[in-house]
Amino acid sequence: MRQRPASAMEPADLGLGDSSLHRYLDGEFWSLKNELRGLLGGCPLFRPRYDLNLDEMRTLTFQRVTFTMGLPLLKRAIQDQVERTRKFVSRSLVIGEVLSTADMATGVKCGIIYWLFGGAIRNLGGPAHVTQWLQPLQEQKYTGMFAMTERGHGSNVRGIQTEATFDFSAQEFVINTPCKDAEKMYIGNAMYGNYAAVFAQLIINGRSQGPHCFIVPVRDEHGRLHPGVTVVDMMHKEGLHGVDNGILRFDNVRIPRENLLDKFGSVAPDGQYHSPIKDKSARFNAMLAALTPSRLAVTFQAMGSMKLGLTIAIRYSHSRRQFGPKAREEVKIIEHQTQTLRLMPHLATALALTFASRYAGTLLDEDIFRGKELVSSRPLQALVAGLKAYSTWENVSCLQDCRECTGGMGYMMENQISGLKCDTDVFVTFEGDNVVMLQVVVRELLAQYTKQYEERPVSSLLRNWAESGSDRLRTSFLAFNMDTVGNLTFLLKAVHFRERILQRGLVARIYYKVMTKKEDFFRAWNSCLHHITCLSLAHIHRVTLEQFCLAVRNCPDQEDQALLKKENRPTRALVLIRWLWPAPTEAQELCLAFGGCPLCILGSPHRGPFPQDHPPCQFCLLYGTKLVFQERAWYLEHKYLTPMTSMRIRRQLLHLCDSVKDDALRVISAFNISHASLHAPIAGLANPKAAWVLYPAPQHSLAWERARSPRPKLRAKL
Amino acid sequence: MRQRPASAMEPADLGLGDSSLHRYLDGEFWSLKNELRGLLGGCPLFRPRYDLNLDEMRTLTFQRVTFTMGLPLLKRAIQDQVERTRKFVSRSLVIGEVLSTADMATGVKCGIIYWLFGGAIRNLGGPAHVTQWLQPLQEQKYTGMFAMTERGHGSNVRGIQTEATFDFSAQEFVINTPCKDAEKMYIGNAMYGNYAAVFAQLIINGRSQGPHCFIVPVRDEHGRLHPGVTVVDMMHKEGLHGVDNGILRFDNVRIPRENLLDKFGSVAPDGQYHSPIKDKSARFNAMLAALTPSRLAVTFQAMGSMKLGLTIAIRYSHSRRQFGPKAREEVKIIEHQTQTLRLMPHLATALALTFASRYAGTLLDEDIFRGKELVSSRPLQALVAGLKAYSTWENVSCLQDCRECTGGMGYMMENQISGLKCDTDVFVTFEGDNVVMLQVVVRELLAQYTKQYEERPVSSLLRNWAESGSDRLRTSFLAFNMDTVGNLTFLLKAVHFRERILQRGLVARIYYKVMTKKEDFFRAWNSCLHHITCLSLAHIHRVTLEQFCLAVRNCPDQEDQALLKKENRPTRALVLIRWLWPAPTEAQELCLAFGGCPLCILGSPHRGPFPQDHPPCQFCLLYGTKLVFQERAWYLEHKYLTPMTSMRIRRQLLHLCDSVKDDALRVISAFNISHASLHAPIAGLANPKAAWVLYPAPQHSLAWERARSPRPKLRAKL
Repeated sequence: MRQRPASAMEPADLGLGDSSLHRYLDGEFWSLKNELRGLLGGCPLFRPRYDLNLDEMRTLTFQRVTFTMGLPLLKRAIQDQVERTRKFVSRSLVIGEVLSTADMATGVKCGIIYWLFGGAIRNLGGPAHVTQWLQPLQEQKYTGMFAMTERGHGSNVRGIQTEATFDFSAQEFVINTPCKDAEKMYIGNAMYGNYAAVFAQLIINGRSQGPHCFIVPVRDEHGRLHPGVTVVDMMHKEGLHGVDNGILRFDNVRIPRENLLDKFGSVAPDGQYHSPIKDKSARFNAMLAALTPSRLAVTFQAMGSMKLGLTIAIRYSHSRRQFGPKAREEVKIIEHQTQTLRLMPHLATALALTFASRYAGTLLDEDIFRGKELVSSRPLQALVAGLKAYSTWENVSCLQDCRECTGGMGYMMENQISGLKCDTDVFVTFEGDNVVMLQVVVRELLAQYTKQYEERPVSSLLRNWAESGSDRLRTSFLAFNMDTVGNLTFLLKAVHFRERILQRGLVARIYYKVMTKKEDFFRAWNSCLHHITCLSLAHIHRVTLEQFCLAVRNCPDQEDQALLKKENRPTRALVLIRWLWPAPTEAQELCLAFGGCPLCILGSPHRGPFPQDHPPCQFCLLYGTKLVFQERAWYLEHKYLTPMTSMRIRRQLLHLCDSVKDDALRVISAFNISHASLHAPIAGLANPKAAWVLYPAPQHSLAWERARSPRPKLRAKL
Repeated sequence: MRQRPASAMEPADLGLGDSSLHRYLDGEFWSLKNELRGLLGGCPLFRPRYDLNLDEMRTLTFQRVTFTMGLPLLKRAIQDQVERTRKFVSRSLVIGEVLSTADMATGVKCGIIYWLFGGAIRNLGGPAHVTQWLQPLQEQKYTGMFAMTERGHGSNVRGIQTEATFDFSAQEFVINTPCKDAEKMYIGNAMYGNYAAVFAQLIINGRSQGPHCFIVPVRDEHGRLHPGVTVVDMMHKEGLHGVDNGILRFDNVRIPRENLLDKFGSVAPDGQYHSPIKDKSARFNAMLAALTPSRLAVTFQAMGSMKLGLTIAIRYSHSRRQFGPKAREEVKIIEHQTQTLRLMPHLATALALTFASRYAGTLLDEDIFRGKELVSSRPLQALVAGLKAYSTWENVSCLQDCRECTGGMGYMMENQISGLKCDTDVFVTFEGDNVVMLQVVVRELLAQYTKQYEERPVSSLLRNWAESGSDRLRTSFLAFNMDTVGNLTFLLKAVHFRERILQRGLVARIYYKVMTKKEDFFRAWNSCLHHITCLSLAHIHRVTLEQFCLAVRNCPDQEDQALLKKENRPTRALVLIRWLWPAPTEAQELCLAFGGCPLCILGSPHRGPFPQDHPPCQFCLLYGTKLVFQERAWYLEHKYLTPMTSMRIRRQLLHLCDSVKDDALRVISAFNISHASLHAPIAGLANPKAAWVLYPAPQHSLAWERARSPRPKLRAKL
């Protein structure tokens, strides 16, 4: 058993449980999470503060980060990264989730040091770099920052302009900011950090080898800036006030040759450049792959934020009463149809993301365990990029609804939701803008598509059509009734089918534009951007639903499984809600996908009556074949169904949301957020910083908490 | 010509224009707006600050409010309210819009004093109250607050528990807070204000006459609290840091009998209660009607916020470059399809809301001019409630997109968007929660519906069906092509039709539940809440589109009209975008409304094949008549169209957004936001508080500004 500081709090005092549902939702590392919750819960630094100015907030966050990084559990996490201990990624991800629930700014700053600075060294450096720069992070001798984004190049990082010129005589690199646009911007930890992992164009003999990453000293342990380095404080943001962002300028700063992280490109003492990857563009992609784990970390942080927001909003909704039948007690606001309709789908999403993000973490760990480089896992990179976009947007939308569903109380800082909103709002644009992330997903999907044809060039197109026959949905009027829509297998097939249709449509459009119309690729791609984002989200929805379904199926505890197997019980019902909602948007989009012609859906340039003047796209090679007409017949059959189906789906959704609203209390309880992190008076928890407000805890919730299996022996075994 | 203080800035220095488009978008009071912009622009107090703590921010806001309320222009506005000068409401509303663009907290605090405290006196008090309490506001001898919401009753204000017991012997009311739930909560200006308009149950001889409004002293001019009054500071919120919200408790505070605002209920010296409205519930509704102008003021504030956010985001999008064709200059981010798709529909909404809210203001002014009481204008109250919900939600969604479309820069406080987001987020739940507001709209729509049948009881149902024939849409496959969809008349008919279908469906459902199934009304209403919110928004969409179309048609300037008349020119095209977007949601919802059966759309309990076992709802009285089958045939005809139509609409939307993106610069320039209020570096305007960032102004924009008609003589004539 690991030593725990005296300050750690007992699970019972923090309202933590470890029932089978708690464990299943927390996952394999549930006890690690509970341990960290206990440690943070016992630390007075983490008590909520809204009354500090920017400097004070940064100072407090610095102390919180120092405390956190000093925990043996965190030191171990760094050593695990050094040694690439099995499953170290998944373990670090859940640490990040718990941290961000305790304080988002602390989570983000630890992420900068561990994932971004540490990850750059681990994934772009050699063994000597790991020993010299990563390992000492355990002793907190210094902290680091990650300097990629420039004023002129944010999303398009390939175009960065900072220069690292090799000086043969001195065996040094000269790091320089040649113009204003080359300034490093938004750099987190810029006002405190000692070293920066700086991306710069590597220039040898006047020739650029593309962007490489260098360790550059920024300030010494006393806070004195390194000569030639200028740091400008970027000051006030919407949230994350504890995170110090700044601008870095380098005026011919000299660093030793060894400070180049040289896994993908090294410079010998004689000035010779070597790289295992010859193509400059591919080389830079390999470096960008180093960002994969930190992107997944954002998903875990967004998930932590959703769980916290939902816990507060749902507890309040089960306690607060307003309006009701004449001359009778007012009803709980969760009884209002609109309240359930707004909150339950987000709860389903939080559950689904729990399993989908865990799955991505497992894949990362497996790859690393097998010694596979991140750069070689392009599908995984795409998955992580997609999850990052999906989860962070869902978080913004979830918190907005939580805020609105808690009325004026939700606007008060002590009730946490609005602070969470402000802190996590930046997630949708940092670590890769979401719209750019969705394009990463689709580039990979198209690459897979192309590869498939390269491997099976002869009858590939025909075979592809034939294959689609096998996953054709049962689509007669009768089959498309409520039972079928409520069937998980059907739903899975449906989202899969939607994805395929969108993918084929996109391929056809781009092929037509680029090959037939000879449009410039950038222009062609840009004119399909809306289609691309739809496809990307469809892909992520499918993967997320798959993982959610698997998780429901594989739930190990007999009692929980029985619960999950029953129709209309929380998780099962929530699975359905998630993919039937937000109706009508998604549900109708689904119907459109079913009902729409696979040839010309989403604006492929079909004009006039079918099929005579259909323009020559890939699929039109199949003109006149039986297959096309089968598809076409199928299409016509479907158009009849759309309005009826939408109605049914809507009715079913209302029913589902209503049926799970009480079970929701059990689900949020199993999110296992410690009462030290959950200090919203409207959630029924006292907050000394807002003594004037306290709502009663929801009664069901207390019942669930009492019913939690105590398992005292298990805890003693830790 | 009115005297202006020496500090007022000239329009040219503030980047203000007065071209015909500027004037048309600013409306009748364009010169008043420009005058106020000049006055605020010249006041150093309004320079942006992000570095103040809560107390300092409140102090600064107090100074800003004092400066503003001290302007002759504002004093005049109070005198206008006193005298009910013609068009005083519209004039005050545009003052509120300009104020909120300069500083939202100042706008909100002035609103509390002018609309809420002042409005309560004006609309609930008698002439003596107006003289005693409203008129002196001009001299700023004191300020007021509005104390309606209680801890236990926010949305359901009818249930407030504060008591005002009449003491016959002393000829006084005793204001008392009997329990914690009766505490007045979220009261704005609670930490500074001197008097409160307090809503309390009026109790005479132990019997309550329902809620009434009383003027209660809170603190004297030196800030000393009145005996028996306790104020608790509610401290930190997501935004509006300059607005001091607090909790008020009254411990048997005695006030003179004359402090009852007695328009709708008075107490004679002998303790006799008199009211022109006998029914308690109707009486309270009459008092709530006093809130109508302040709700409309929120719409103007939300609109100001949207215009400001869009101006910043669109200017940046026309300046910032990122990505582009290989080996070519990067393109402006406005060229990215997703960027235009996200921003242009919001711009259309801002334009449409400009005219719709102006229309509501005009109606209010006309009613007041004709001496009509607010309480008698229930349709107008419903319109204002609906506009409040619609505009504030649109604002939240608009600013979120502006924030995301400006990337990391949008997250920085100096670029204004994130601060605006935080300040205006509360708009969706204060002054009447939006979900409750939507129900107000539908209650009125149903009341109109019922009234219609009371007046024409015999063949009313049949006639209603017949009428629907006259506005039936041309719906054959050929007619539903791009040209038709692009036709404004068609679009107007379409949204009108959607509203009617939703309304009939709702009536049928509620009738069935309450009359046939004998369900409790609250339960029946609650189970239709989703349907109710859809209908309510459909109604507001229709009214807004109507006003927008009228405004386009009535544009007086020849040049502008020529511009507007052309297809694909900004305003015309933007009208279309707004109602085709957010596609697929709205567009598909529209199609669903077209394609869906008017009988059982949205979950009326139709089960099984039509029409044999259709349950007996209102419409089913018409079983077997030719009319139903005509409708039914029409329905079947439509289902064929849905997917094709959605595709067309989507393609048209992409085209429209693309075609207006350059014209957008001209539209935002005509929003006429002063450069003193627009200090976002990403908009190309220097901000001394963030010297480290400045982007170039968009070139087109500069061209537009240069092209602004100088009209120097007009200004001299003011």
